[in-house]
Amino acid sequence: MLIQIFTTGGTFDKVYYDALSDFQIGEPMVPALLQEARVQFEYQLESLTKKDSLELTDADRALIQERVSKSAARHILITHGTDTMTTTAAVLQHIKGKVIVLTGAMQPARMRDSDAAFNLGLAVGALQTLPAGVYIAMSGRIFEANQVQKNRAAGYFEPITE
Amino acid sequence: MLIQIFTTGGTFDKVYYDALSDFQIGEPMVPALLQEARVQFEYQLESLTKKDSLELTDADRALIQERVSKSAARHILITHGTDTMTTTAAVLQHIKGKVIVLTGAMQPARMRDSDAAFNLGLAVGALQTLPAGVYIAMSGRIFEANQVQKNRAAGYFEPITE
Amino acid sequence: MLIQIFTTGGTFDKVYYDALSDFQIGEPMVPALLQEARVQFEYQLESLTKKDSLELTDADRALIQERVSKSAARHILITHGTDTMTTTAAVLQHIKGKVIVLTGAMQPARMRDSDAAFNLGLAVGALQTLPAGVYIAMSGRIFEANQVQKNRAAGYFEPITE
Amino acid sequence: MLIQIFTTGGTFDKVYYDALSDFQIGEPMVPALLQEARVQFEYQLESLTKKDSLELTDADRALIQERVSKSAARHILITHGTDTMTTTAAVLQHIKGKVIVLTGAMQPARMRDSDAAFNLGLAVGALQTLPAGVYIAMSGRIFEANQVQKNRAAGYFEPITE
Repeated sequence: MLIQIFTTGGTFDKVYYDALSDFQIGEPMVPALLQEARVQFEYQLESLTKKDSLELTDADRALIQERVSKSAARHILITHGTDTMTTTAAVLQHIKGKVIVLTGAMQPARMRDSDAAFNLGLAVGALQTLPAGVYIAMSGRIFEANQVQKNRAAGYFEPITE
Repeated sequence: MLIQIFTTGGTFDKVYYDALSDFQIGEPMVPALLQEARVQFEYQLESLTKKDSLELTDADRALIQERVSKSAARHILITHGTDTMTTTAAVLQHIKGKVIVLTGAMQPARMRDSDAAFNLGLAVGALQTLPAGVYIAMSGRIFEANQVQKNRAAGYFEPITE
Repeated sequence: MLIQIFTTGGTFDKVYYDALSDFQIGEPMVPALLQEARVQFEYQLESLTKKDSLELTDADRALIQERVSKSAARHILITHGTDTMTTTAAVLQHIKGKVIVLTGAMQPARMRDSDAAFNLGLAVGALQTLPAGVYIAMSGRIFEANQVQKNRAAGYFEPITE
Repeated sequence: MLIQIFTTGGTFDKVYYDALSDFQIGEPMVPALLQEARVQFEYQLESLTKKDSLELTDADRALIQERVSKSAARHILITHGTDTMTTTAAVLQHIKGKVIVLTGAMQPARMRDSDAAFNLGLAVGALQTLPAGVYIAMSGRIFEANQVQKNRAAGYFEPITE
């Protein structure tokens, strides 16, 4: 099984820069986490953007959509900021024959207390067992991407209530 | 979705005791990891044993089998030492109507560099998407429990080669 | 030996707030670090401000000076942002009969890779062995506070070159 | 300032080996910790033994004593198991003109919750400020090495009570 991983930025990859008294998106943490997880599957990783998801543009989403569509892999994992994860998921819905799982983190992977490693495992676990479609793996749950929303105030993902 | 979690010990829960100059199985680390993962599902956790899996007896396995069978939950997650994970999985194969996923860790969850959090996510992700059966979530992969073996020398799980 | 600890904020105590897409100063991390360090001395901790040191005002420094002067303790440890640590140290120079050590961190204590715990130890070690005066403990070294500067570009503290 | 560091093993450097279901002394963690601490002093590190201090022999102590005596450095830091740290310190007492600080850890540096980084800072801080002699930096305190004992039951170092 080959997993194609696309990273787009978000809290997952944030780094603290003392010189700036600020954080910025750093290099993808996925490889380090997969190494700590001692995984035994093959993967390719491509960093598409390094942005907070609130700053993703239509052009960014067009790029994500293009790279996913053109990938030879059936299994696609996308790390993404949580604020507009559902928006990006929506532009991927029309892609056929691929299992696409988006995940992210509420706390940067570089923090001692972070959901990043667990979320990555959550997404990888779902990726291997789900049929083709677009999904979100957050808050310990697997959601069909068009049936979930981020509850910003509460800080977690939940089903869209009718 | 309610997940019933049974912990049996293993590397996952090892603690270093300076007074003993030794590692021993401590309290389950699953609750702490689920809290860091900021999960939003309900679960119940029961600690069945605190043993290295090489030390599990037939009586221990009978207990695990009984508790799993009697659980009202459909979704069962078991943390277990990696050395005899497949042995315990085998005694659970006959249980119908439940999705049972076993996982563990090659490095204790209390270590800075550990696969525990990722593996827990891997198991939780698979648990929500798999049909009834017994599975092992290790080394980044989801295996049918009777089709996998631990490659002790290499330190990972792999399909049983014909 | 009783150590009086005053915290003023800085990178040391930064927390990532997903809702704000930003880092802010959180509760002092010193107690958690001292607990992990399994220390056996008594201390009292008072949080004076929760600011980036670039934002400290004359009023803030007057408060720090007052609290240090009025403390019954001989041993004073101050955690502080690194950018203006020397400025605050300067206003404390006139205080007699106290060993005052300022420290901080280039990476928040809540990060996996942080100098915070080491720096805290560095400061506590120096505090017990130095004569009365004002010192800075950073970059693995103990400096007389009026003989050191922060090399902002390089990201470390060094002696002021003549 | 050049610090000569000698590592002898102990809990500080313990690693968990799944294949052995056991821990063993691994490669010294001091370099990794000094890098995370972003220190700006020069040091040389030599691994003399990789043993639990209960297993150190007279020959081991003779080696430690020889290497310390022959070092050109004035500042010597020794990482050591905590159980017989005072015994090794005793054989170094006759060495003149050097500041020798021994430290160790109650929890391996590779654990998430460890005193190792703080203790290393504690020792480095004291090393720069103390006069020639032999000292132990543990439990947040700096002790003259012949005036301290490890309280095994309580798990910390304390002054020898008269």
